[in-house]
Amino acid sequence: MSLNSFGHVLRFTSWGESHGPSIGAVLDGVPPGIPLSEGDIQPFLDQRRPGQSRFTTQRREADQVRILSGVYEGKTTGTPISLLIENTDQRSKDYSDIAKRYRPGHADFTYDAKYGHRDPRGGGRSSARETAMRVAAGAIARKILGDGIEIYGGLVEMGGDAIDRDLCDWSRVGDNPFFSPDPEAAKRWAELLDETRKSGDSLGAVIEVGARGVPAGWGAPIYGKLDADLAAAMMSINAAKGVEIGAGFEAARLTGAQNADQIRIGKTGQPHFLSNHAGGILGGISSGQPVMCRVAIKPTSSILIPRQSISSTGENVEVVTKGRHDPCVGIRGVPVAEAMLALVLADHMMLHRAQCG
Amino acid sequence: MSLNSFGHVLRFTSWGESHGPSIGAVLDGVPPGIPLSEGDIQPFLDQRRPGQSRFTTQRREADQVRILSGVYEGKTTGTPISLLIENTDQRSKDYSDIAKRYRPGHADFTYDAKYGHRDPRGGGRSSARETAMRVAAGAIARKILGDGIEIYGGLVEMGGDAIDRDLCDWSRVGDNPFFSPDPEAAKRWAELLDETRKSGDSLGAVIEVGARGVPAGWGAPIYGKLDADLAAAMMSINAAKGVEIGAGFEAARLTGAQNADQIRIGKTGQPHFLSNHAGGILGGISSGQPVMCRVAIKPTSSILIPRQSISSTGENVEVVTKGRHDPCVGIRGVPVAEAMLALVLADHMMLHRAQCG
Amino acid sequence: MSLNSFGHVLRFTSWGESHGPSIGAVLDGVPPGIPLSEGDIQPFLDQRRPGQSRFTTQRREADQVRILSGVYEGKTTGTPISLLIENTDQRSKDYSDIAKRYRPGHADFTYDAKYGHRDPRGGGRSSARETAMRVAAGAIARKILGDGIEIYGGLVEMGGDAIDRDLCDWSRVGDNPFFSPDPEAAKRWAELLDETRKSGDSLGAVIEVGARGVPAGWGAPIYGKLDADLAAAMMSINAAKGVEIGAGFEAARLTGAQNADQIRIGKTGQPHFLSNHAGGILGGISSGQPVMCRVAIKPTSSILIPRQSISSTGENVEVVTKGRHDPCVGIRGVPVAEAMLALVLADHMMLHRAQCG
Amino acid sequence: MSLNSFGHVLRFTSWGESHGPSIGAVLDGVPPGIPLSEGDIQPFLDQRRPGQSRFTTQRREADQVRILSGVYEGKTTGTPISLLIENTDQRSKDYSDIAKRYRPGHADFTYDAKYGHRDPRGGGRSSARETAMRVAAGAIARKILGDGIEIYGGLVEMGGDAIDRDLCDWSRVGDNPFFSPDPEAAKRWAELLDETRKSGDSLGAVIEVGARGVPAGWGAPIYGKLDADLAAAMMSINAAKGVEIGAGFEAARLTGAQNADQIRIGKTGQPHFLSNHAGGILGGISSGQPVMCRVAIKPTSSILIPRQSISSTGENVEVVTKGRHDPCVGIRGVPVAEAMLALVLADHMMLHRAQCG
Repeated sequence: MSLNSFGHVLRFTSWGESHGPSIGAVLDGVPPGIPLSEGDIQPFLDQRRPGQSRFTTQRREADQVRILSGVYEGKTTGTPISLLIENTDQRSKDYSDIAKRYRPGHADFTYDAKYGHRDPRGGGRSSARETAMRVAAGAIARKILGDGIEIYGGLVEMGGDAIDRDLCDWSRVGDNPFFSPDPEAAKRWAELLDETRKSGDSLGAVIEVGARGVPAGWGAPIYGKLDADLAAAMMSINAAKGVEIGAGFEAARLTGAQNADQIRIGKTGQPHFLSNHAGGILGGISSGQPVMCRVAIKPTSSILIPRQSISSTGENVEVVTKGRHDPCVGIRGVPVAEAMLALVLADHMMLHRAQCG
Repeated sequence: MSLNSFGHVLRFTSWGESHGPSIGAVLDGVPPGIPLSEGDIQPFLDQRRPGQSRFTTQRREADQVRILSGVYEGKTTGTPISLLIENTDQRSKDYSDIAKRYRPGHADFTYDAKYGHRDPRGGGRSSARETAMRVAAGAIARKILGDGIEIYGGLVEMGGDAIDRDLCDWSRVGDNPFFSPDPEAAKRWAELLDETRKSGDSLGAVIEVGARGVPAGWGAPIYGKLDADLAAAMMSINAAKGVEIGAGFEAARLTGAQNADQIRIGKTGQPHFLSNHAGGILGGISSGQPVMCRVAIKPTSSILIPRQSISSTGENVEVVTKGRHDPCVGIRGVPVAEAMLALVLADHMMLHRAQCG
Repeated sequence: MSLNSFGHVLRFTSWGESHGPSIGAVLDGVPPGIPLSEGDIQPFLDQRRPGQSRFTTQRREADQVRILSGVYEGKTTGTPISLLIENTDQRSKDYSDIAKRYRPGHADFTYDAKYGHRDPRGGGRSSARETAMRVAAGAIARKILGDGIEIYGGLVEMGGDAIDRDLCDWSRVGDNPFFSPDPEAAKRWAELLDETRKSGDSLGAVIEVGARGVPAGWGAPIYGKLDADLAAAMMSINAAKGVEIGAGFEAARLTGAQNADQIRIGKTGQPHFLSNHAGGILGGISSGQPVMCRVAIKPTSSILIPRQSISSTGENVEVVTKGRHDPCVGIRGVPVAEAMLALVLADHMMLHRAQCG
Repeated sequence: MSLNSFGHVLRFTSWGESHGPSIGAVLDGVPPGIPLSEGDIQPFLDQRRPGQSRFTTQRREADQVRILSGVYEGKTTGTPISLLIENTDQRSKDYSDIAKRYRPGHADFTYDAKYGHRDPRGGGRSSARETAMRVAAGAIARKILGDGIEIYGGLVEMGGDAIDRDLCDWSRVGDNPFFSPDPEAAKRWAELLDETRKSGDSLGAVIEVGARGVPAGWGAPIYGKLDADLAAAMMSINAAKGVEIGAGFEAARLTGAQNADQIRIGKTGQPHFLSNHAGGILGGISSGQPVMCRVAIKPTSSILIPRQSISSTGENVEVVTKGRHDPCVGIRGVPVAEAMLALVLADHMMLHRAQCG
């Protein structure tokens, strides 16, 4: 397995630096004959574009994706699909102070420790902008999955303030700048973020994504488990610190009688689960229930409040990040988490087909 | 990447069924020249052996491991190490009722959906006994890591009852049957489990494992991230439903100022972190801080309380699991989680060496 | 990708030493529901058993394979299939002189250089006996391919003496001890080998294997090319020094007009190729023509003629190999090459199904 | 392993179509701190540029490579290196006749069979131009290997006419348009190709590449064998039909006494091999001898002589390829084979370091 790509049969490899001339990705193993154009991908990128609301980063970036290969006459050819996005807005001067200082919570320190040579501009490759390619690839993965699979996602918690499940309407996550399925929570979060932005601090969030229509049987037991692959994919999202499936950590607090999802034959004669604590996955294989997953996103480490840190030459310094930053990177993480879910599911759909037809 | 193995350079593949004649594993990529014998591995297996306390499964299993290859004159040869454990205690008759019924929360339903052909005995390959091989492989991984790396682990929560961090002494986890670092919690859990066992129900738990002495620089950015690999490894543990690194989901509830781990030059002239919310990993690379990780284990699905389910022929039935079961599989998951941590760290130690010498 | 396993979706990992207690392998990704028992595998192992003729090694080994997992009630379950063969005949004393001397042409020198620690008994892991597991796995691969695919193989050259293609009958390779499709060549080879055996020397050989009935479309372009995977699989056979597909090196000596396989619509209305210089593979994908491949096997390095070599302590010595050896390992390589062909084709059949249904 | 990338630790993934806007590749796992710029790569691309002599394709292509990521301030950062080449000369109209006809010997037929949807322009992804990226990546691999490893290569046979080893001077391969180390052969080949070009036919060739200075110990036994990886890499070269290591198929015609490379302690006190039939690899591991490998390249399938073929609608047709073609693609294959050798060796250098330090 490549160290900068993932997937078993549907393989995604990304490249490019945040402040380099462009960023790109290769997605290979895509089945042939699928209608695909930039128009299928761009809407998902627009959803995550900076400057969309006053709550996200003020970089006026177009993020226009181009398909350079793997598509002919509007359909995939089965050969690798390469995507490219030109970086049109790259104000490098924002980062001159940072070159020699390690920003607490950023990967600066660890990159230097590993490589001895680090690109300080915009966080180099660890920047959240790399995730634009994931969102693009995720759009293609959704085409592979087809219309029978519905991917949804949103924020269910911000700064410790959770949504009310009774007010939850997943079809309305596009109505507010936070992808909140609860409109009341959205109002509270608007105020919360404004205060946070003024103070120069930042907030964490919890993302929830799911997929309806996944048939039972996807995933392989033990090491090729669908939930293990999801865990890796979600944990690889910038700023992710936790992943849970279904009831997750809450399941650890239930008894066996409470947690197990009982099954009945429903009116249609089909198996019907009475609950979904399992999050649609049992023994590493999809159960037919909605696949459901949550990701904990830590608060942005780039804040305006001075923090104690050290320089690369070993002196104690204070660090204040200037420039453009997200007070809550979790918001922009929603389309990314949806994309990762789509990629992992499409990979497993194909894997299941490989072994079981 | 194989669907039943994992690792980039240090590769682990397991095989065998819980009620088959034996179970085994292959660990390859092990550096040569490392002293190794069964005596290095057996203690870790003994730690997880059934029948150890009245709280764990009553199967009197020896779990004696044999090294079949990869070692010559007491040292690893660099060629694959194959391990084998004979199954000496396999009371199959316990499972005759289950063959045609799907136990809620078990993988029965999903296995049938995927393969159309399932081994009902003891849960087949999804049984927790497969994890014995992981523990064995983990023992070898610890030898690869060497004495400079210290792995620790234990239970920090059972049935929603958490340890008190002020009473926490990780060196004392062996003093109670629960791997609890808090002796007071251990007493409470003993009573809790006795009640649970009487009622026929089960409890979930939260495992915490960590590693001290991991140098900065292990892990590759984005997709070969150390935390992503840990997430996959832990989520692949039987009954795992959530994984978090460092502050995990709690980080989502902190502000940036609270969460970022500030750095100072310590008395020794070395960088010293003032906190470890990051759990020892930043940007997918180890920071030099203790690597720390928690796993949520759901309550055992094999309980004595009748649950509603369906049969393989589509009728509504009730299911009651008889036989020998764990009221809390989380306990036995502790050595497994430690083993996974050791395997992932050893793999990344070698990966780092591959790229950076 | 593991360093001791191969395959994309159908993954084969072997373990064990020639003079250890047993050898084994894991084959995972096998589709479920395929009827399988030891009886499906043993005949292929018997075909390669030592002592079969006076021309092969005189070790009276039973090579009885056992299936330890992955099969239930006579059919594959889809979970990993583990195979094991006990070593019943292990005369170690044959090798006591060799421990400190490097046998020219053997891997002794390179193993020491790499690992600094080598198992001298029977060539350790580099011994041809490891290939028994490949033959066993190949038997399973044939079941996966099904009856529509016919695998054939034999020796087409020994010691520079080639078969006569006009006398070639592939159905008769079992009639002589050399898997020769040409009975006249078999007679000549019997004399040739007797002379060689008396002189204490050894001979090389060229193996040819093929598969009829492979549909067009298997293989992925560029790096997942069917012929590239075949090349790796064949070159991994002990003593292999060359691999060619179709006309192979001879194609390099033809002109374009001579080499290209022209196509016509045949009487059946189906495409019909007028020749098969391509060996059934074009652009890395199967063409529907028989897949055909040849492997050059060097002469056994274990000969009775003294050779100049050095000791592990750097002195010039002479080496004479005693004990039991093959005067032509190429003979026993035939079932191995057939097995590798079956494994690679089955892997690609499943890969094609993953991407293209 | 991705279906369009290869390597264990040093991973190469390419993308792009011959007649698309650009082609590119990603090379990841490159060690950090290595000086690198376009100037290190361009000379190798210039070596293979069309229009260089009257014997190669008449496309006036600049093939200017750009490094888009993975390098900062002139040195590698350890993150993925993405390369891109703009296609400046793409006369598509040459291929209009071909869209519906299968060119014999080309992958047209197999692509349609696999994908049902094929890009007919310039051979799409199977075109030899994709190999420009391999040459570029190979240049980087050489930097990873360092000055101690010397890669050499050239043509040793064209159209069946072999070089004279007594006249062989590898330092002079740049003095003629054929990379021939034998100047006399170069003269004969010039006439041979002129005749072939006039007749509209094409010729095959045999490439030889090697590496001096490879220490003993690189490669892993059995499946991660250095020679198996080389075989796959070489066979993946467009038009390759055979690969051999050292004496190759000739070894199959030697006796054991003739073939084994005897060892003596040389004047320097170091082991000295008396011959190199093994081609520098024994048991899958480098022996310290020059690694030597030959590749058989079939004659170009795009010739001006009418060939019998069929259309995609099943009619018998004649095919004549017009436009610009190589009468001997083997010539341009030399830098590609050298690049593949460099990539595989660099990958194995790093793998060895991972396991053995």
